[in-house]
Amino acid sequence: MSRTVMMADNSMKRYEQVIHYLMVRIEAGEWVEQEKLPSVRSLSELLGVHRLTVFKAYQELKQRGIVYVRDKSGYYVSPAKPLSDTDQGDDPSVSAWLHWDTLDRVQSLEAEYQFSKSLIDPALLPNRYWGELMRDLLDQYPRLLGTYSTIQGDLELRTSLASHLTAKERFYLSSDEVLITSGAQQAIDVISRALVKPGDRVLIERPTYGPAMEIFRKQGARLVFTDIHPEGYDLEQIEHLMKTEKPRLFYMTPTFQNPTGISISVEQRKQLPELAEQYGCFLVEDDSTYDIYFKEKPPAPIFTYDTSGHTLYIRSYSKYVVPGLRIAAIMCRSHLMAGLQAIKALTDNGSPLLNQKLFLRYFQSDRMHQHLSKLRTALQLRMEVMEQCLLETDWTWTRPEGGLNIWADLPEGIDTGRLLHQSMEHSIAFVPGTVFDPSHASGSRKLRLSFSYAREQQIREGMDRLITLAARS
Amino acid sequence: MSRTVMMADNSMKRYEQVIHYLMVRIEAGEWVEQEKLPSVRSLSELLGVHRLTVFKAYQELKQRGIVYVRDKSGYYVSPAKPLSDTDQGDDPSVSAWLHWDTLDRVQSLEAEYQFSKSLIDPALLPNRYWGELMRDLLDQYPRLLGTYSTIQGDLELRTSLASHLTAKERFYLSSDEVLITSGAQQAIDVISRALVKPGDRVLIERPTYGPAMEIFRKQGARLVFTDIHPEGYDLEQIEHLMKTEKPRLFYMTPTFQNPTGISISVEQRKQLPELAEQYGCFLVEDDSTYDIYFKEKPPAPIFTYDTSGHTLYIRSYSKYVVPGLRIAAIMCRSHLMAGLQAIKALTDNGSPLLNQKLFLRYFQSDRMHQHLSKLRTALQLRMEVMEQCLLETDWTWTRPEGGLNIWADLPEGIDTGRLLHQSMEHSIAFVPGTVFDPSHASGSRKLRLSFSYAREQQIREGMDRLITLAARS
Repeated sequence: MSRTVMMADNSMKRYEQVIHYLMVRIEAGEWVEQEKLPSVRSLSELLGVHRLTVFKAYQELKQRGIVYVRDKSGYYVSPAKPLSDTDQGDDPSVSAWLHWDTLDRVQSLEAEYQFSKSLIDPALLPNRYWGELMRDLLDQYPRLLGTYSTIQGDLELRTSLASHLTAKERFYLSSDEVLITSGAQQAIDVISRALVKPGDRVLIERPTYGPAMEIFRKQGARLVFTDIHPEGYDLEQIEHLMKTEKPRLFYMTPTFQNPTGISISVEQRKQLPELAEQYGCFLVEDDSTYDIYFKEKPPAPIFTYDTSGHTLYIRSYSKYVVPGLRIAAIMCRSHLMAGLQAIKALTDNGSPLLNQKLFLRYFQSDRMHQHLSKLRTALQLRMEVMEQCLLETDWTWTRPEGGLNIWADLPEGIDTGRLLHQSMEHSIAFVPGTVFDPSHASGSRKLRLSFSYAREQQIREGMDRLITLAARS
Repeated sequence: MSRTVMMADNSMKRYEQVIHYLMVRIEAGEWVEQEKLPSVRSLSELLGVHRLTVFKAYQELKQRGIVYVRDKSGYYVSPAKPLSDTDQGDDPSVSAWLHWDTLDRVQSLEAEYQFSKSLIDPALLPNRYWGELMRDLLDQYPRLLGTYSTIQGDLELRTSLASHLTAKERFYLSSDEVLITSGAQQAIDVISRALVKPGDRVLIERPTYGPAMEIFRKQGARLVFTDIHPEGYDLEQIEHLMKTEKPRLFYMTPTFQNPTGISISVEQRKQLPELAEQYGCFLVEDDSTYDIYFKEKPPAPIFTYDTSGHTLYIRSYSKYVVPGLRIAAIMCRSHLMAGLQAIKALTDNGSPLLNQKLFLRYFQSDRMHQHLSKLRTALQLRMEVMEQCLLETDWTWTRPEGGLNIWADLPEGIDTGRLLHQSMEHSIAFVPGTVFDPSHASGSRKLRLSFSYAREQQIREGMDRLITLAARS
């Protein structure tokens, strides 16, 4: 051990000298892979430098991947290969993340043929018009960027949503019955934290939106599944489950369901609130693509048939109206509102006012309605191009009547997880069905193909390549 | 019972007729206060109208305050006086809200002399300049309003924050060690959900920011208090508590503490991370007014003295930089980041990109630094005006060296809760000290007076009136 090595080069900064000291020894094998390095304290005493200097050196080595940190234990020499992703200890929040991360990771894959993102191609959005609205807005409210919103959300926005939905969709809603959230994700989380206690059962569709499962699990719920079919739910099964499992709530996406695209009938929409009332089970109706229909407007939401106040309705405008603003709303009768507001207060004290006011401007404009109509046409075209490609195959699927995805079934013998690995080598991304159904009850031959993000030409080329790959599998 | 009454006026809409039917009978005493009204189903059969019509009528009567709803039970006649605020049943989330609501309610009091809002007077903010930045931003990124952020936050913003804090404040931080949140409130909540399990102890200052207590309680934590004094913490007591209670984390606001304005010494800042390391207790350092100092820059944050990765640092720019954008950040070493990201994903899937990019523009401008300097001067003037008024009294207080509040102590015999009721009659709002200390350990003579929201003239007038009222009490 020598100060000499440490001070070899006087032009180096102190912490660089410490790095040098450590690197020489690691390379010489004085400490081997996975071996513990000296503590900050002991190395600082040994080398006669300040503890912060040693700390900075370790931080730098950590960033370079030379050393890693174990919680409460210290610095270790990194193995030659990076640590496995799953080697994260037994912290439940970390393992939850890895689980959730599946959809997140798949959706964030960079690919030339992008069928994994259930998002609208930004080229289809009226970005320039929004810029103009923003300019007008700041002229009208010069102090908007200095002002906080209330917890429940801007009153003008809540009033506008309530009266629009009452006039157009029979919601009979007052502004008190609306809570503004930052996207549907936050809406589900707020509801879960307000209503679900550890040990509660939560009824949920299969397949379903993966992050919703994580939210309820994080709250300590036990999930109970009910399958969704092209003809809708099995209400007898649901009644049986409500009777025997006594779920606290039923989380559902009954309109252009993600991933399947299924919408349930008016008849089922009427019966569900009656079951909910009879068995004291809340319905959480998540509605994120209500306006994206290809044939006709979908049936009215379940919420409008509920006369006992058991339905909490999430209307999200974040996916297809102004994605960057992240505006969604929870609508429910007022006896549930205080509990939701309490959680929203803890969560973030209210969504930013700027985002709410700009959304309101757009929501009240004729332009939004014109744009939604154009958007439907553009998305239908893309859906049809994708379907055209599928017609050449022996895959099966049900044509979606709305939404952003086709849910397809590959021929026997093809595993979509394996196919994704192959397709990513050709820069084609999609989501394997198991992400929406970790129980694997629907098998490993399902996949979700989003037609909303890629352009028509890309859909044609990418689908042709994907189909060729699948045929070879 | 008669269809005749129901149909008395043919010009009325169906649901108005149902309302009329009910109103006549409530006024006649056919149903009395707190009595259950017929169910939607039975009334619809009785009157031969659709269930939704009856439902709409009840909704309307509910909004008028004529009837109210009991969960899962039905509609009841409202009592003549409104129900007490505390009569909310035993739902724990509701009672949590009522509790939290204390600060929220006090802060949202409308008053001519506004000393309850610990927020910056919007007249002190460069609103016009922000408007220009927004225009430039949308010119540069025309698709910004159609784009989602990543969960961890915009990389450009994280890189800028990390390199600024590393260059100016010795943070040795990389962009991977920063998570963007929507305000400090969300930062505390995310940390709490990632680190605290039900039954864990959480060490917390007394007095403290009320909503933080609610967040940890909602997560099932048991709170353990340590007092903060003008000379800082009692580190012996803290060490004793860390040893005996084994708290999971210590939530603290060591710089211009809210409400007291106290900042702890460099010596304590160095010792706390050592205690944290020794006893395996995380430090959650909440720093919401770091740049609002009146004499000299506050000492470097505790985070910069931590060489073992036990400190999670919350730097909020939401209170005084651009309040409407709600930008804050959690900074911590990378072994904690995966767990925080998991919760941020569940919470809202990432803060809106628009808000992050606009904040970044301002943060990188010279204008922000010029403005912060002016803001310090303006706030110091207001603080001095308030103090001038206090010099005429026998109240006690410690002059704050930064922050937005004076924490004062009334002479014996005056209860600040009672004083608030009196002062509100004169349109003067402040926050009684018990809001920051529900254990009442610091007595009922404390109050928090914010000097950041009212103008100098208002401070002078309002304080004179408040002092007169207190003297009469």
